[in-house]
Amino acid sequence: MPASYAYLGPEGTFTEVALRTLPEAATRELIPYVSVQSALDAVRGGEAEAAFVPIENSVEGGITTTLDELVAGRPLMIYREVLLSITFALLVRPGTKLSDVKTVTAHPAAQPQVRNWLKAHLPDVAWESAASNADGARLVQEGRYDAAFAGEFAAARYGLVPLETNIHDAENAQTRFVLVGRPARPAAPTGADKTSVVLWQRDDHPGGLRDLLGEFATRGINLMLLQSRPTGAGIGNYCFCIDAEGHIADRRVADALRGLKRSCREVRFLGSYPRADVAVGDVGVPLPGTSDEEFMAASDWVARCQDGRF
Amino acid sequence: MPASYAYLGPEGTFTEVALRTLPEAATRELIPYVSVQSALDAVRGGEAEAAFVPIENSVEGGITTTLDELVAGRPLMIYREVLLSITFALLVRPGTKLSDVKTVTAHPAAQPQVRNWLKAHLPDVAWESAASNADGARLVQEGRYDAAFAGEFAAARYGLVPLETNIHDAENAQTRFVLVGRPARPAAPTGADKTSVVLWQRDDHPGGLRDLLGEFATRGINLMLLQSRPTGAGIGNYCFCIDAEGHIADRRVADALRGLKRSCREVRFLGSYPRADVAVGDVGVPLPGTSDEEFMAASDWVARCQDGRF
Amino acid sequence: MPASYAYLGPEGTFTEVALRTLPEAATRELIPYVSVQSALDAVRGGEAEAAFVPIENSVEGGITTTLDELVAGRPLMIYREVLLSITFALLVRPGTKLSDVKTVTAHPAAQPQVRNWLKAHLPDVAWESAASNADGARLVQEGRYDAAFAGEFAAARYGLVPLETNIHDAENAQTRFVLVGRPARPAAPTGADKTSVVLWQRDDHPGGLRDLLGEFATRGINLMLLQSRPTGAGIGNYCFCIDAEGHIADRRVADALRGLKRSCREVRFLGSYPRADVAVGDVGVPLPGTSDEEFMAASDWVARCQDGRF
Amino acid sequence: MPASYAYLGPEGTFTEVALRTLPEAATRELIPYVSVQSALDAVRGGEAEAAFVPIENSVEGGITTTLDELVAGRPLMIYREVLLSITFALLVRPGTKLSDVKTVTAHPAAQPQVRNWLKAHLPDVAWESAASNADGARLVQEGRYDAAFAGEFAAARYGLVPLETNIHDAENAQTRFVLVGRPARPAAPTGADKTSVVLWQRDDHPGGLRDLLGEFATRGINLMLLQSRPTGAGIGNYCFCIDAEGHIADRRVADALRGLKRSCREVRFLGSYPRADVAVGDVGVPLPGTSDEEFMAASDWVARCQDGRF
Repeated sequence: MPASYAYLGPEGTFTEVALRTLPEAATRELIPYVSVQSALDAVRGGEAEAAFVPIENSVEGGITTTLDELVAGRPLMIYREVLLSITFALLVRPGTKLSDVKTVTAHPAAQPQVRNWLKAHLPDVAWESAASNADGARLVQEGRYDAAFAGEFAAARYGLVPLETNIHDAENAQTRFVLVGRPARPAAPTGADKTSVVLWQRDDHPGGLRDLLGEFATRGINLMLLQSRPTGAGIGNYCFCIDAEGHIADRRVADALRGLKRSCREVRFLGSYPRADVAVGDVGVPLPGTSDEEFMAASDWVARCQDGRF
Repeated sequence: MPASYAYLGPEGTFTEVALRTLPEAATRELIPYVSVQSALDAVRGGEAEAAFVPIENSVEGGITTTLDELVAGRPLMIYREVLLSITFALLVRPGTKLSDVKTVTAHPAAQPQVRNWLKAHLPDVAWESAASNADGARLVQEGRYDAAFAGEFAAARYGLVPLETNIHDAENAQTRFVLVGRPARPAAPTGADKTSVVLWQRDDHPGGLRDLLGEFATRGINLMLLQSRPTGAGIGNYCFCIDAEGHIADRRVADALRGLKRSCREVRFLGSYPRADVAVGDVGVPLPGTSDEEFMAASDWVARCQDGRF
Repeated sequence: MPASYAYLGPEGTFTEVALRTLPEAATRELIPYVSVQSALDAVRGGEAEAAFVPIENSVEGGITTTLDELVAGRPLMIYREVLLSITFALLVRPGTKLSDVKTVTAHPAAQPQVRNWLKAHLPDVAWESAASNADGARLVQEGRYDAAFAGEFAAARYGLVPLETNIHDAENAQTRFVLVGRPARPAAPTGADKTSVVLWQRDDHPGGLRDLLGEFATRGINLMLLQSRPTGAGIGNYCFCIDAEGHIADRRVADALRGLKRSCREVRFLGSYPRADVAVGDVGVPLPGTSDEEFMAASDWVARCQDGRF
Repeated sequence: MPASYAYLGPEGTFTEVALRTLPEAATRELIPYVSVQSALDAVRGGEAEAAFVPIENSVEGGITTTLDELVAGRPLMIYREVLLSITFALLVRPGTKLSDVKTVTAHPAAQPQVRNWLKAHLPDVAWESAASNADGARLVQEGRYDAAFAGEFAAARYGLVPLETNIHDAENAQTRFVLVGRPARPAAPTGADKTSVVLWQRDDHPGGLRDLLGEFATRGINLMLLQSRPTGAGIGNYCFCIDAEGHIADRRVADALRGLKRSCREVRFLGSYPRADVAVGDVGVPLPGTSDEEFMAASDWVARCQDGRF
């Protein structure tokens, strides 16, 4: 197993910063890839042990390129997630003043986060899109634009300085990243876990999706993400990427997955992994009737009834 | 184990006739008891191997004395059911003509079945209730009444003759009887089986009962009986006697029972046994996603996901 | 409209006592009838303004003769309910001592309420059933039995004295009575009301009853009674007598009834009337989204959307 | 009202072609805008009568920029939809042969549709993204690239010729466009209609979304699109864009919307309009209990019950 992690590059982006918050990243070679697809292909092909890619953010929702890669092709599994708050710095060449800035650049995804700030502070500036925030910083270094929005951490790498930091139109702007590998036994439950699956409905009828969601609801399992993705069979044909509370080792989650497997045309398991958004101590207790103990007691009872011992 | 069956007597009633349709009855001593309670107590106390009692009829619905006995007290299990069409004969002493009949008797439960016939043929007759239809026949034999409604089979036993047979106001009038024993392993599924349970809700809230019934519905299990019975905790407090399609050895039934066990305050298993109302060949196929094979495949799949082998 | 109330007689039973708790009973002639059927027929035939009959008790559950009369035939409506706690007195002729009592009588329905008391105090007594508790008292007066279980209020009427009062095996033993009349506009809601309906399913399939109950559940309406009754179409064919919280003038109840009317083969409305079990102040607030105001606001909003004004 | 339609430009894209399939487009001035946002702002600001923008395609699913614009800001309504099959032509300057093509360009959205064709026919070509397919054609005209993928219709406008037509990796590749205007009364139902809404859940709990979907399911309404969009309140906070069968003038749709309005924190109505994917004759009949007639009959019945006339 090669001791390397692929990640969505280039260097100096939020993805790299998020990846470095994982302790295990310190012991791996971190290799930037030009696309989510190429990073995941590196895992599928055995060139990388795992890939680290963005999967959801508070502005765009589920990141469709990542979801589509996980939905199709050789199965992969999510092992970790990282949440990163996204705030921007306005990076310029040393000596540039705000009044000198006539052109700015950044990845298009940055735009919704800095629009209001721009309107207030640089209403007449010209915006040009860059392939990534890091690439925007590079173009400023090369003199092609006057300023770039990027993470403050990118300044040093490109010989720039932050004119302004902590720029963010929306409070709570966060991006969620996942570490994806080839299928293997999930890490043991921590008590604050999340399970990701993809569901394809068996057929489309009134109540079809409602009933599938019922497999979670009747077991007291909350959902954190429900993102529809086209199946490729034409407009109106969707599968559903779902993040649910709990770990596949939890009885209520395993039971819900069994119900879904029977009720769906297809289910793809994308992993059970620790939640980044909540500490173990802050996860509520299971609803009545949904604890591991109650599931085990119910199984025992049915077995005893089947044997006539009760 | 004593080779005797208790049944709700006296001799010469529909209950005895129904009991004798069971092949195993031929090899047991059949002992009449004066009440459902005493017959079931004979089983609980070990005096009888099993008891044969009415549990439902098409006029009264669930027979509450039987249900209440099964709901409470030492657990019992249903092993067999028998359906008997109920039609009456008008029994008289030899020589009596219809125009001679001024008084008739029968068990009160017979009344709804003969009311229209009486109105048409004996509008002015006086009705007196008897403790059982057989007892009514005895009272006619003794000369106390002119005629009794009873099963035609009772005529010979009491020296009476049928003036009229096949009397029944309602088409499809049937009584369902069950053979009840102490808990033991249920007979193997036949492919056309029924499972009886009693449910006590954990708490009472809008949707509580709906959700319990959902445990059957989401697994494609039809219900044949839903009879509420007071819990004894005061007006408005009910438990529910339920007959459902299928056998506890069927995966979908076992799975539904597990769900109920978790969701209910209490569940009492009353047995899985062959259906008397339908032949094995006339039971439909399970709904998509609810066959044994699909349940097993779903379990296998979740186990593989838990191990990371998929 | 004749100013008389029919009630299930004879005089001196719990039914009469319950009826006299209604203020309006003071201004009506109260006429005992020999059966629930005859009392209700008196209303249907216009001989009585209303009939007062038992409908549910904490030992038997729904009283099937009453329910069956309401389910079928010319429509009737419930206007009032009364709850009466049931405790018995042991009535004897003056001078009789407990040790003199060798035979007791009462209506069979009294038996479950006095069984334990008898076992403790009169273990060897002989029990004979009477047509009613009042009739039992009369038979004691006539010297036919030594003692009768009846309401304490019956003693004076039959020249008896209570040897013991407040006899009740079960705490909370209550009987619920209803005042039934011909259909008319229900009394205005009080804030603590109940609505009774009968439902016939359109067809029988897994989830059929679950979905009907969902019409109540999704509008936050609790059920107080669900009693299945045979439809007469043979074993396993049931309709459902349901008591639900709220008044048909409440938007959430009216909306649930509309949903049921569409989803059922047939629905029979049996009335909306004040609850006897709870004071207005003790009824909880409607669940979020189910208040009259929210229903009206939702209707207004849809109307505005239909007009394009929003 | 200005007689002009804004559309997502530039000229010569699939959007313009789709727009011109609407008969009413022939009588309006069609004005290209540089973004979905600017086209919709033109409607909101009163500069354009309506805007025509893509909202869903079979590769990307819901088009998030369009959905996000409809979800937030001043309310808009959808009046029409158009489905367009998407196939590409490879456009070159006259005289260019396939073997001459070393560089190709197109909008990034075209890439998934031509990837396989490129791999098979031009495996070594360099891809450069253009701002739109039309813009790519212009760049080929200017000699900056050798070939552009675009609609065949774009060839003439830019003095190019199609080297190859009907290029599409995925069968059934379609884009759905909508004509959006300010709120007004929706067009009358055609019998094959669609209704679009946005739902915000009141609170997040197990079963919350399941119950909302139940408002459609219990009224026999199929869903065609369920697309979650971030609310802006941080990761994991979503609203849901839903396309459902039927017209707000249909009783079952109006009734479902009333239920949603009560149950949701907020509902935004986005319009009822004719379906482009199915002819009126091919829409199935409503499920039992969900026709307009049944809704009206149910309303009448409840009104009669409220008046005591039944």
